[in-house]
Amino acid sequence: MQLQTPEGYHPLDEAGVKAFVAALPSMSQRLGGEPTAWSVGEVGDGNLNLVFLVDGPDGSCCVKQSLPYVRLVGPDWPMPLERAFFEHECMVDHGRHVGRLIPEVYHYDPEMFAIVMEKLSPHIIMRQGMINGVVYPKFASDIAEYCAQTLFKTSTLYLPAEEVKQRVAVFAGNTELCRITEDLIFTDPYRQNERNRWTSPQLDPVKAAFEADSELKLAISRLKLKFMGSTEALLHGDLHTGSVMLTPDDTRIIDPEFAFYGPRGFDLGAVIGNLLINYFAQDGHAAEGRPSETPRAEYQAWVLETVEAFWTGFRARFIEFWEAEGTGDGYPHDLFADEAGRSALAEERERFMDVLLHDALGFAGAKMIRRILGLAHNIDLEWIEDPDIRAKCERKCLSLARELVLETGSFNDITAVTRRAREVAAAAG
Amino acid sequence: MQLQTPEGYHPLDEAGVKAFVAALPSMSQRLGGEPTAWSVGEVGDGNLNLVFLVDGPDGSCCVKQSLPYVRLVGPDWPMPLERAFFEHECMVDHGRHVGRLIPEVYHYDPEMFAIVMEKLSPHIIMRQGMINGVVYPKFASDIAEYCAQTLFKTSTLYLPAEEVKQRVAVFAGNTELCRITEDLIFTDPYRQNERNRWTSPQLDPVKAAFEADSELKLAISRLKLKFMGSTEALLHGDLHTGSVMLTPDDTRIIDPEFAFYGPRGFDLGAVIGNLLINYFAQDGHAAEGRPSETPRAEYQAWVLETVEAFWTGFRARFIEFWEAEGTGDGYPHDLFADEAGRSALAEERERFMDVLLHDALGFAGAKMIRRILGLAHNIDLEWIEDPDIRAKCERKCLSLARELVLETGSFNDITAVTRRAREVAAAAG
Repeated sequence: MQLQTPEGYHPLDEAGVKAFVAALPSMSQRLGGEPTAWSVGEVGDGNLNLVFLVDGPDGSCCVKQSLPYVRLVGPDWPMPLERAFFEHECMVDHGRHVGRLIPEVYHYDPEMFAIVMEKLSPHIIMRQGMINGVVYPKFASDIAEYCAQTLFKTSTLYLPAEEVKQRVAVFAGNTELCRITEDLIFTDPYRQNERNRWTSPQLDPVKAAFEADSELKLAISRLKLKFMGSTEALLHGDLHTGSVMLTPDDTRIIDPEFAFYGPRGFDLGAVIGNLLINYFAQDGHAAEGRPSETPRAEYQAWVLETVEAFWTGFRARFIEFWEAEGTGDGYPHDLFADEAGRSALAEERERFMDVLLHDALGFAGAKMIRRILGLAHNIDLEWIEDPDIRAKCERKCLSLARELVLETGSFNDITAVTRRAREVAAAAG
Repeated sequence: MQLQTPEGYHPLDEAGVKAFVAALPSMSQRLGGEPTAWSVGEVGDGNLNLVFLVDGPDGSCCVKQSLPYVRLVGPDWPMPLERAFFEHECMVDHGRHVGRLIPEVYHYDPEMFAIVMEKLSPHIIMRQGMINGVVYPKFASDIAEYCAQTLFKTSTLYLPAEEVKQRVAVFAGNTELCRITEDLIFTDPYRQNERNRWTSPQLDPVKAAFEADSELKLAISRLKLKFMGSTEALLHGDLHTGSVMLTPDDTRIIDPEFAFYGPRGFDLGAVIGNLLINYFAQDGHAAEGRPSETPRAEYQAWVLETVEAFWTGFRARFIEFWEAEGTGDGYPHDLFADEAGRSALAEERERFMDVLLHDALGFAGAKMIRRILGLAHNIDLEWIEDPDIRAKCERKCLSLARELVLETGSFNDITAVTRRAREVAAAAG
């Protein structure tokens, strides 16, 4: 299949990347020396894009370029080049608020659909670290800060409605990537579709039960409607532990190519859901004797503490911003300026966060299910080699996920979630 | 104040309208004869635009043109010409579904920001008819049909998510008119602002009480957040009885210049709220002995029947569409194709409509309050000359409105609303 691409675009190779970077004076200066002295490596391990790391005598950079198709699948699954545009737009918008929690952006080339940004080193993808039992003590507060900053400061709680509408219009163009989410998360896992994969035959009965579970399908469809019909804040859109690169001291959020204006709970749920997937996977890695930097049981405790610390930290920080910088069109400041108003608004903020937790838990459940019964799986579970052991972990994960989606309202705070996770993990399965 | 306007634009006068229409071959043909034989009248009685009616020997048309400012106020309140663009876009989008419930669009001129459309005759503005006690037997079912068609068929219950996003992006540009709603409906009436007007001194205590009512201000702010952050369907955006032109046999919805993607309840609430305003105004017209085609008490009964018939008809029709044409991305058809799924989805539709009624009632209350304590009032109440009599009607209207906003959840069906309206009207006041 031959895909049409716009004039001026061609996929880069290692030689091409050197020429591309060398043509940018600020980058040449940053890397130092002659391009012949630079080293280039292609490291894209994601499903979609080309990613090059370029090192020179004085500095380095990372070049991320869209391909006109899904890299994992090939030209048979075309994918718009414009995702690089949306990723760059999101990095700029979020970057105003989150500083060094994302890579620094050096340059965007709209013809090549390529972003030139900071090379992160020695950061690794968080998911890999978690499989190896690496504790990241700063992660909870960093991701809480990232979420609070982005989900507050791109919304009408902080901005005039006009600015939000202008950005909603821009990101409404990222339709194809939203479509992936709509199909792969909210639809396919609950029906028969050739793209679905699951541990078979072990999970065949669960898959069949989910397809027949009308109440679950209604609850998932309500979440999908919220995903498609809310413009609360500019979301990262794919905020799992594979979109985090870190060291124990430094956390960076990458890859916001799914960015769009949507419901805050979707990003928050992605964080919670992916931590919980790892929690349930730990027993599998323990059973297979995979080495761990931290004893597996201890690590599981840390994962749940991280879930709690993330939500608690996010909630506190979001409320802090709202109190200090609630200058947007939502809950207009001057309606609540008197003593009674301030007090009423303070209570409202708590209620608001309670509702947001429920949103987040529903989306967390949806994210957990799609990684076990849908197309795209996580290595947290995939790297458990024995299908019986893996299926046991997955069954428990699905069990909690189903409760999160269906009985969202029964979880009154985040400790109710972690407590239930412990109970489900401890049950015979 | 001199306002910049784009090249090619100038405000039309009566001679200019003739030349403008004559330059359109299809319009010349429709009107017939020579332009010298045409008659032109400017009839814009709204707050914003120029409206010309043009009659020729064979036919007629209406030309509606944006001015670069609010006509009512003058150049001191600039207003974007582009509102004509959004009105035309909405008429085209809605027109696909509602047929003759809106005027036929003949032409749009993007440089002149002028829409050429069907001249409605002998239709009058519904609000005037209602003040005169004119019964419109077809209105309830016509407006129910209009709302069901537009609020279903522009949404993801009917359309692919991509199409909705594309339209969301277009209408996100209508920021200034959304801003008017955000300020004049959801904010100003609850604070001190020089734009507010109310029957003074009679309503001074009520106005002060509303400004101090923190719970009410929270509830209004929640509605505002929903207004700014939902993209459920393409709304008319200003669906009061002044946006309806009709005869007893024919109903037309006009003036969707406030069109945007927002929460369905906002349009539905506009209909309900404006009918209720007229209901409470009737006692005032009766007290002043204003002549009525229908005895006032009988007319009031008809108004409440119309509220009920509107909601009941809308609800039934919306569900019908959903059952027969629920082909969009919301609640995907093939997730609910089996017996159990069909039955579960049928129940979900009922729940969905219950939630939508609550949304509508909240917005109805907000619409009622802004017409009594905010900038723009309705002639339903304004034409009651005696301020004591008017204030008595307005107090009752505000009392029900406050309940609709604050105790939305206590109204389980539309008859609970009309029953409560009767009780409030009957109370000493």
